[in-house]
Parts: sequence; structure tokens; C-alpha cells
Amino acid sequence: MLETLKEEVFKANLALTKYELVTFTWGNVSGIDREKGLVVIKPSGVEYSEMTSHDMVVVDFEGQVLEGNFKPSSDTATHIALYQSFPEIGGVVHTHSTCATSWAQAGRPIPSFGTTQADYFYGEIPCTRKMTREEINGNYELETGKVIIETFRKKALDPIQVPGVLVHSHAPFAWGKSPKDAIHNAVVLEEVAEMAWRTLTINPRTSPMEQVLLDRHYLRKHGENAYYGQGEKGSGIR
Amino acid sequence: MLETLKEEVFKANLALTKYELVTFTWGNVSGIDREKGLVVIKPSGVEYSEMTSHDMVVVDFEGQVLEGNFKPSSDTATHIALYQSFPEIGGVVHTHSTCATSWAQAGRPIPSFGTTQADYFYGEIPCTRKMTREEINGNYELETGKVIIETFRKKALDPIQVPGVLVHSHAPFAWGKSPKDAIHNAVVLEEVAEMAWRTLTINPRTSPMEQVLLDRHYLRKHGENAYYGQGEKGSGIR
Amino acid sequence: MLETLKEEVFKANLALTKYELVTFTWGNVSGIDREKGLVVIKPSGVEYSEMTSHDMVVVDFEGQVLEGNFKPSSDTATHIALYQSFPEIGGVVHTHSTCATSWAQAGRPIPSFGTTQADYFYGEIPCTRKMTREEINGNYELETGKVIIETFRKKALDPIQVPGVLVHSHAPFAWGKSPKDAIHNAVVLEEVAEMAWRTLTINPRTSPMEQVLLDRHYLRKHGENAYYGQGEKGSGIR
Amino acid sequence: MLETLKEEVFKANLALTKYELVTFTWGNVSGIDREKGLVVIKPSGVEYSEMTSHDMVVVDFEGQVLEGNFKPSSDTATHIALYQSFPEIGGVVHTHSTCATSWAQAGRPIPSFGTTQADYFYGEIPCTRKMTREEINGNYELETGKVIIETFRKKALDPIQVPGVLVHSHAPFAWGKSPKDAIHNAVVLEEVAEMAWRTLTINPRTSPMEQVLLDRHYLRKHGENAYYGQGEKGSGIR
Repeated sequence: MLETLKEEVFKANLALTKYELVTFTWGNVSGIDREKGLVVIKPSGVEYSEMTSHDMVVVDFEGQVLEGNFKPSSDTATHIALYQSFPEIGGVVHTHSTCATSWAQAGRPIPSFGTTQADYFYGEIPCTRKMTREEINGNYELETGKVIIETFRKKALDPIQVPGVLVHSHAPFAWGKSPKDAIHNAVVLEEVAEMAWRTLTINPRTSPMEQVLLDRHYLRKHGENAYYGQGEKGSGIR
Repeated sequence: MLETLKEEVFKANLALTKYELVTFTWGNVSGIDREKGLVVIKPSGVEYSEMTSHDMVVVDFEGQVLEGNFKPSSDTATHIALYQSFPEIGGVVHTHSTCATSWAQAGRPIPSFGTTQADYFYGEIPCTRKMTREEINGNYELETGKVIIETFRKKALDPIQVPGVLVHSHAPFAWGKSPKDAIHNAVVLEEVAEMAWRTLTINPRTSPMEQVLLDRHYLRKHGENAYYGQGEKGSGIR
Repeated sequence: MLETLKEEVFKANLALTKYELVTFTWGNVSGIDREKGLVVIKPSGVEYSEMTSHDMVVVDFEGQVLEGNFKPSSDTATHIALYQSFPEIGGVVHTHSTCATSWAQAGRPIPSFGTTQADYFYGEIPCTRKMTREEINGNYELETGKVIIETFRKKALDPIQVPGVLVHSHAPFAWGKSPKDAIHNAVVLEEVAEMAWRTLTINPRTSPMEQVLLDRHYLRKHGENAYYGQGEKGSGIR
Repeated sequence: MLETLKEEVFKANLALTKYELVTFTWGNVSGIDREKGLVVIKPSGVEYSEMTSHDMVVVDFEGQVLEGNFKPSSDTATHIALYQSFPEIGGVVHTHSTCATSWAQAGRPIPSFGTTQADYFYGEIPCTRKMTREEINGNYELETGKVIIETFRKKALDPIQVPGVLVHSHAPFAWGKSPKDAIHNAVVLEEVAEMAWRTLTINPRTSPMEQVLLDRHYLRKHGENAYYGQGEKGSGIR
């Protein structure tokens, strides 16, 4: 079942290696079939070089495995929580990519310092609060999803306009219209994390870019009046 | 038309990947035929791995497409503005290369700390002022070109002696006698941006190199008395 | 003799290059046969590209060579000391990997800033005290092992829970259940060393992660209640 | 003439690329035949990918070309000066490798922070004073060699024990018993430059390693009582 989506998710998981976002098995990608309400996700702890598309695991919104020879990623509950609260997204990526993880460890959002970020993220990339003892000792992966969702709700952020987040003391999650699109945003997140870190060491008092420039760049690529690329109007992300 | 120039521009665009100056499609190179007054430029948002030389787009100085199946790069108006104001240049490169972009985000010129820079840039690599609300909301890409030109005019810089610039909160542009030469200068710009950043973290109070050493190195490679390389006297850049 | 272990140790030594942990011959891996009380280790100063599994050297706990055409690694005495005091380990790795060595040179333990580290190291990665004049001028490599062991004893650390250390003004050692596992931990050590360094430059006052989160992540992968990966319960490291 | 040495020098020049010490043509290696008093050096400004061993240029101590179709490296006079004053060296390398050049630009010697450096350099890697107006405007490349020699004389350094230097506001030179050995030391110089930079950002007040540890590591690999590697006693560098 869901062979096309499995292939997409499989390829997106391989792209984690191609874009140097992961060491060993430290990352996972999922995709969703919105009609069926089913999620396809990487198996837990399996090496990318040994994986095939048939090893992808199909789970429902309760996390029950419907198909697959392996256990799903231990982060599955986080992915599902994001799909449930962010109805427009079609793919989710979790990595421990080096620079984005460093910002997560520092507990700091990535400021919007320039147009590289503004082309994909409509403002800073938020960092969640620390999780509580109860959350950590409870259904931890589900609670990780909940604290991400809380962060977006409290800051009134649109997950399509800000397709990624840093989980405090942990690492980034990114998402998009599809698994491929989620990978794209995860690559951007790592790249802007590196640039922002270096920007701060050049000038520790750098302030975020002007709102008017942020608007211009973000809207040049997204929404009704986008004019970047060859796609039709309003083709959304990328 | 302009098949040779298209081939040159195409190869220079591929060199962006070879020299690791770009992620995805974040860069573009153009070249100019000065006699015909026509510019050849990368199509917008097309992946480097799928491009052929026939996909290059030919535009005139008004930005009208004379030949090509794709829309030209969304930065075309910036390229054209530079060709119009800098009559000696033959190629323009725009990238979001990591270190140079970090300096642009910090809003700081790259100081002339050593001979690596002095061999190609006759002094610091300038950073433009922030653009105004009117410029950003107007013909943005054209205004980007204008603010670069203003920066060179106000600082009385010769674009042949300083073949690159940082656009504030954005990223670098570089240029040269030809598309290949522009790529060469874009590589140097990224390299000296990395060195200058690291130099500052080793010694935050590092001052620029001595003027006499800057003169010696720049003039060793450029102008009437150049003696570096195998080329004829006065062969200019590189 | 010990052909299987030699092959394992040989492959682990090649992995040093694959994971970019070494320059030239700056690293060595060993493995132990606990039943026979024999250690297999890389020959000293031999290039990885010229080595075969037959070049691995077999030594006993006194460091006497039982088999091999080459002298064993000059760090052999350190490896043996660790095997003697840490009875549960099966492989030892020594490298001068760039970021971990930088922390060792700074004389600072690597703080536990996030879950990447917590997945493998149950807390900070310790740094030994400086060695004394007598230790350095005495049986230096043996004393290096002793100062590592002293560090673990004084801090009451379990070498299975903290599978690595920084030797002051020198470089890291890592270990694990097997040579392959030791390499795995050496890769993690280098990765978290890079992240921790960058974390500090983003926010110099970053405090270590919450103990409860450290517990959760470490125990998710290790011990009786591990639920990460496909392995059996309690399968230990990784 | 000198075909063997040409081959050695040619291979050492290619190694500059292999070890990522150079961008474009920013580096050169030479070797010397002490009996004949002749130096073989890379031609100026020729790309590594187009060079053959036959393109190497033979010059005498006055810098006169005895054989070769190209002009010798523009840095030839510096190489010759080093060969004349440092009679034990057999190869010289000049690069603009990223980290070492950053230290040269900061005008700071690389402190001896750990054993990685101590294995090859007996103490800190010195940085020359700034050159004077007269030196820069005079026979610049020869004067560059002279300021290096002055640095070693004033600090009473043995060029065999400290096989490299930073030229202020410029970049590193390294040397060794042979062209291959000089490359080896240039790689080490770049590596320890990176580690020392990172060490300083982790702990800006890091002090140099203990003299007794420096002695131990340097002498473990060099001189009469060396016991590292498989070579004979006293085999010198490496």
C-alpha cells in the first residue's frame, strides 16, 4: 500500500545523507496521505545504506503500524502531532544537523538576518521553551510535538510561512508541502543557521533585517504575486 | 544567436556548483556581448543539473527576452544595471556563498587583512547601505543595482580594481572581464570572507594591511607592470 | 592467530579515514580478546592506505609483541591500561580529531548541551588534569592511561556510560563494546565537540541541559528499558 | 636534467590540491639538489591540472632559469633565500591555506597548545614582523625570505625543529628534508592553525602547553631517542 509515497519518503531519507544533514541514523523523514489519514515513515535505527523503499513503515494517527517489517522511527509521535495540527503540510523532517542543532542547544531562535532566510522563512526560526519534567517523563515524543505546536500558537506563526523550528536542547524539525519540500527546507534551515552563527561572530550586535525587505523577499517567492522561478502563480513554497 | 557566449555563461553557471558557491539554485551568472548590447543569463529557478547551454536566456538592456524558453533570472535587472554603469566588465555573478553572505548580513565591508585579498581586490570589499522602503517596494532588482553603483561612486572605487561588493542584508555580487573571470573573483571573495572572519576571531583588533603592501601585491598582478603568471604585460585581472 | 579480531581492528582503523577523524597516521584503534587476554592494535606510523589486516600487531597485557612484523602503536600502553581498568570495553580508539582536540587543548570538558550528546554520553565528556613532570618523563603512555582512569574514578564515572575522554593538552580517547562501537563513539565525540564549540559562540552562557532530559535520552537508547532501534532490550551502547 | 627531482617537485605540487591547501594556483613547492646547487620549482600561475613534471623550472641560486619553458614561480627568490640560510632543508612550500593565513593576517604566532603541534613543531610557529616600506618596494620576494630568516635568528630558532613560519599580513611558508616532507609540514601547520583558532574561541585565556610535555612529544618523534614509527633511530622529521 502507498507505494508511491513510500518511494518519496525513501528518497527523501536518502537525501538526508546527500545534503550532509545526518551522521549515522540521526534523522528521519515522513510523508502523509491526507485522504487515507496514513503516515509513511523511516524505520527506527536502520542505516540509510541498507534501507529500501519497502522498509518504510505505514502508521495511522494513533501510531499503530499498519504495514512494515520494522518498528517505525522513535520520533513517530512527534511527526503525527505535527500532521494533525498543521493540516497543510505533507512531509516532516527531523535531523541533528550541526549548525541548527547548535542554535537549539543555545536555546536561541535564529534571527532573520538576511534574504537567504527571507526567501523561505517569513521571519525568525523559533526555538521552543524547555520541556517540563512531566512532559519529558510522560509521552515524550508526543509532548515534543505539542511544545512545537504551542510555540507556533503563542507566537501566532503560520507553519507554512515558517516551515521549521528548533526544539530546545535538542535539534531542528522542518516540514513542507511534501517530503521533498520538507528536505529542501531542512537544508535551508541548516544553511541559514550557519550564516547566522557566523554573522554574530563578525558583529555580535547585528540586528534583524528590515521588515520591508523580509516582506519583499518572502513574497517574491511565495503567495499570489510570486515571480521567482518558472512555476505558475501562487505555487507556494519554492 | 550568441552561441559562444551562451556556452561560456552556461559553463560559468556550472562552476558555481564546482566551487561550492551555491546551494540549490541560489546563484546566477551572466555575460555580455558589448557590440550587440545583449546579455546572456541563467534562467530563473532552473536546477544546474538539468540546465543546458540552450536554456540560457538572451535579453536586451531593457530586460526584454530576445531568445529563450524560460524566464531570465529574477536578478536580471541588477546584472543589466551593472553592465550599463561599469562599461569594462564582461561577466557578473550573484551567489549566496556562506561566508561572504555572513559579512553582508553583518552589514560590514571585508577589511583588506592580507595579500590574498590584495592580489585581486585593491582594498576592502565594500558593503552597500541598507536599501530604503521606496527602493525595496519599487523596482527592487534594478534598485539593487543602483545602490551598488552608488556605493562605488561615493567611495570613488574603480569596479575593475574592486571586482565585487556585498549588498546589505543580502549577499555578494562579483564581476570580471568575462563570465569565467567573474566566477574567479566570486571564489576569491568567498575565500577572503572566510579568512577575514577567522582573523577577527583570532584578534578582534586586527587592523588592515599596510597600504604599501596592498599596492605591491595588487600591482604585482595587475596593470602595466604586472609580473605574475605567464601572460603578457598589463593583461589585467588575473 | 586472532584473525577475526585482526580483521575487525583493521576495518575500524580504515573507518578513521572514512569518518575524517585522522590526518596522516594520527590515530589508532585496538580490540581485545578477553578470554585470551590479548590485544590487537594498529602498527606504529604505517599509512592506512598501505595497511592490511595481517599488519595488525598482537600484544599481551605486558605489551610484549606475540605476533606481527611491525612495532605496535606507540600508544599501546595507554590502550592496555584502559582494557585492564575498564573490564567491560572491547575496543579503544585514539585520534586527534579537530574539534575534540581543540577542547582538550582548552583543557575543558565538553558540557552536555543537548540530546545528541545525551544519546551516547551520560553527561559531560571529562577532561583529565594536566600530567605531572614525573608522569610525562616516566612511562608516558602508561601514565596517560592512568590519568584517564583516575579521572573516571574521582568523578565516579562509569566508562560504559561515558565512553570517551579528553586528555589535557593532547587529544581524545574513545571506547566501546567492540572496535566498531569505539569508532562510533569517537565519531559522536567529534560531532558533539563541534556542536558544543559553536553553541558557546552563539551563547557563551549556555548552561548544560536539564538532568531529566539527559536521563530520558540516555535511557531511551541504553539499559533495560531502551526502545530505540530494532535490537533486543538492553542491548547496551547504540 | 634533474628529472627525479622534477618528478618529486611536480608530485608535491599536486599534493597541494589533494590536501586542500590551495585555491586556483595559490601555492608552490620547490626542491633542491644540494650538490649541484640548483632549485626546481613550479612555474608561475600555471594550473595544477594542466601541469606536467616537464613544466618544472630549474633555477640557480641567482634565480637564473637554466631549464624550463615557463617563468618560475614569482616567489622563487623567497625559496632560494631559505635554501641559502637553512642548509639542512630540501624542500619549501608556500600556500595561502585558510587557517594558517588567518593567523598570519592577525599577525600572531600560533601558540603551542597541544601535542599535535608538539609532534612536529618544537614550540610556537612564529610570525614575522611587518615588512618595511623599503623592503616591500625593493626586491620584495627576496626581502620576504630575509624577514623569515631574521625571525629565526632573533628568536634563536632551529629551522629543522620549527619547519614553518607565518609571514605577517601574508601567509605561511613551510619546509622539510624533501619536497614531500615540506608538504607534510604544511598540512600539519594548517591543521594546528585550525585547532588553535578553535581552542581560543573555547577558552580565550588558554595558555601554551607545559614545556615538559612539549619536550616529550617532540623528542618522541625526532632526534636520537625517537621511538615513533618503524624507521631507524634519529631519522629526523617524521
